Amino acid sequence: MNDAGDDLDRMLAPDEARGIVLANVRPLEPEVVPIDVAGERYLVDGLIADVSLPPFPAATMDGFAVIHNDPAPSRTILGAGFAGDSPSVTVTPGAAAPIMTGAPVPAGADAVVPVENTARGDGFVEIRQARVSSGENIRPIGADLRQGDLLVPAGTRLGPAEIGLLASLGHAQVRVGRVPRVAVISTGNELVAPDARPGPGQIRDSNRFSLAVAARRAGAEVVVNRHILDDDGALREGIAAAVELADVVVTSGGVSMGDRDLVKALLGDMATVHFRRLFMKPGKPLNFATAGETLLFGLPGNPVSCLVGFHMFVRPALQVMQHAPPDPNPAVPVTIAHDIAPGDRIEYQRAVVYAGADGRLRARNTGNQISARLMSFVGSNAYLIVPPATEIYRSGAQLSAILLGPPAPAPDDRNR
Amino acid sequence: MNDAGDDLDRMLAPDEARGIVLANVRPLEPEVVPIDVAGERYLVDGLIADVSLPPFPAATMDGFAVIHNDPAPSRTILGAGFAGDSPSVTVTPGAAAPIMTGAPVPAGADAVVPVENTARGDGFVEIRQARVSSGENIRPIGADLRQGDLLVPAGTRLGPAEIGLLASLGHAQVRVGRVPRVAVISTGNELVAPDARPGPGQIRDSNRFSLAVAARRAGAEVVVNRHILDDDGALREGIAAAVELADVVVTSGGVSMGDRDLVKALLGDMATVHFRRLFMKPGKPLNFATAGETLLFGLPGNPVSCLVGFHMFVRPALQVMQHAPPDPNPAVPVTIAHDIAPGDRIEYQRAVVYAGADGRLRARNTGNQISARLMSFVGSNAYLIVPPATEIYRSGAQLSAILLGPPAPAPDDRNR
Repeated sequence: MNDAGDDLDRMLAPDEARGIVLANVRPLEPEVVPIDVAGERYLVDGLIADVSLPPFPAATMDGFAVIHNDPAPSRTILGAGFAGDSPSVTVTPGAAAPIMTGAPVPAGADAVVPVENTARGDGFVEIRQARVSSGENIRPIGADLRQGDLLVPAGTRLGPAEIGLLASLGHAQVRVGRVPRVAVISTGNELVAPDARPGPGQIRDSNRFSLAVAARRAGAEVVVNRHILDDDGALREGIAAAVELADVVVTSGGVSMGDRDLVKALLGDMATVHFRRLFMKPGKPLNFATAGETLLFGLPGNPVSCLVGFHMFVRPALQVMQHAPPDPNPAVPVTIAHDIAPGDRIEYQRAVVYAGADGRLRARNTGNQISARLMSFVGSNAYLIVPPATEIYRSGAQLSAILLGPPAPAPDDRNR
Repeated sequence: MNDAGDDLDRMLAPDEARGIVLANVRPLEPEVVPIDVAGERYLVDGLIADVSLPPFPAATMDGFAVIHNDPAPSRTILGAGFAGDSPSVTVTPGAAAPIMTGAPVPAGADAVVPVENTARGDGFVEIRQARVSSGENIRPIGADLRQGDLLVPAGTRLGPAEIGLLASLGHAQVRVGRVPRVAVISTGNELVAPDARPGPGQIRDSNRFSLAVAARRAGAEVVVNRHILDDDGALREGIAAAVELADVVVTSGGVSMGDRDLVKALLGDMATVHFRRLFMKPGKPLNFATAGETLLFGLPGNPVSCLVGFHMFVRPALQVMQHAPPDPNPAVPVTIAHDIAPGDRIEYQRAVVYAGADGRLRARNTGNQISARLMSFVGSNAYLIVPPATEIYRSGAQLSAILLGPPAPAPDDRNR
């Protein structure tokens, strides 16, 4: 089956292909989980404040709650007033209540004098601060957040602070996107297990191990991770079983133009194929198909093409499935730190992006960008986007890059 | 116990305090794990190539292996020559061998002509490419990596590419740092569970939930996660049990200067205290102690101070325990996009760092930086470092920032 007639071998621009992937992906059904295990998941509904925090005026320092313009140099100490106790006392002129950071300021008081600026005697305290302002060291009601505010937008990944906010607002459970189930299958007669010694013409299987890490990093659970030989029956059975179990099936190999490229043929047979070829480098052959709600990505067998294809097409789909934006970090402008030769297709070079002394982002590629060279990823933190052109991009030119993490240390720093 | 006499309440600069933490932390014993589960762990030994890859000259395109300067326009097709089969044929003048991407180039051939530039007949193939260069579309032996090369330095986090490299080099198992065990304890009588309604002067417990996410994000396993009331016996027992189970014990609350700051007192009693106060904002009171091999961090109870303290001091320790560098991403220069008022202590403001149209990193803080306001983290991707000063830092001034992820989309983009 295919939905594009004989046009499936047309080379698509990556953006067009991404549009097709995103048009075919839907957020998975949400689930409710305790906040203990909700870290790194994505929020389905925006979090609205249903109370103001702090709910009471709170001390921001350990010290004494006082009346700011009380002229008495020495004050009678009232009650206990520790954090956690009710603020049962009322501060009157000539009096002060000991108070701890975070505790409610007792009635009557309108400032807190830090303990460092006081001297405690027996039943009294001397205020040794020349001037006390109204509201000093007090966090008013609603200073942290106000009832009705949108605190965390839908689609936010729940990190430490978001989980803390949920807890402080009484959300012991939270609705998050379900974790996508991913099946990873490497194909090819030439592949042997990592602990085997490759014979002539053989190489060790690596893509399914890389893809599993990439899938988990993208928030998915890997439910199938296997190698299948180039055998029509075995592949058909393996892919069908994976479609049953997984939300996304990712294969590597078997999608180029050779006679034995079985995956390509099988996807056409078992699913609706949406595209097969991309106008990009690396990763020209990349099949995308759907079977019911399951997405199938036939990635190329070259290790780099395989991972670039995963990042550009599979990861955004996994993001959307989890109720997250497809690309939280779009490309940013960077200055290239050396000449770069473009090709005839848009190229995603593995690169190191760092901030120069002027705070400007600079990029160096990681050397030889051949599509089998996984080494080009090591130490990289970005994809440098090199548009097709007829002239070399000169050092100092501006291109753009997709960063996968923080900018790297500047090269000079690394040599220290 | 303490190792600094009466000097423990001296305020340390954050860098000095970090130095003390790092001097007291050692990498945990390594463990050997299968590569299936080694993703995101840190490599203990540098990975050296013990073979060259590819081990044979390999085709980079599907097509026909030929002799580049063979004048014959039409060539006899030899053997089968699919990827995974032995390259048993020898290409002679007038002949060509079909070949798939990644397959060994058969003897005799010195170029591969892509299938697009050929026309296949019955037993012969026409080469429709004007000029074929020697070595064209062939990846020579060692193009990907050379025997003896340092491929992945010790201390590298194993991402998709590194795991793929390990697999392709025959490392079915790998030595990585053990996962640190972290105990998280929140303290304070004022805390109630997230699903409880706080009474007067009470707030919901949130720090232990935040800290657990932060610890997992830093690569640790959380083995204890509980709240303990301000009771000397309960706290003593709880901390002692945590020290038994964990490599790192992190508490929140009970470390400021109030009467009931029991954690501070207990750490002094049960462990060797190295420092108690920092010249930074937020996070002034922060206790660091050791008990045998276990590190204890008494973080402040204010939610923001607590997370900033975790990031600046606990996270580097967890990195080192895992055989990783303490700070893979040091501060980078940024231009501030609005005026910022400094204080009298170095301040770590939660900020959004984005790249402007010129590729220069710009920073905006997230508004009110009060230390109880977890909201200041939401949407942030950086700590902006604001050194103490007497004059306001004006918009356009250069400061530095520690990024926690890629630069954010520029504000204009976010409004589209």
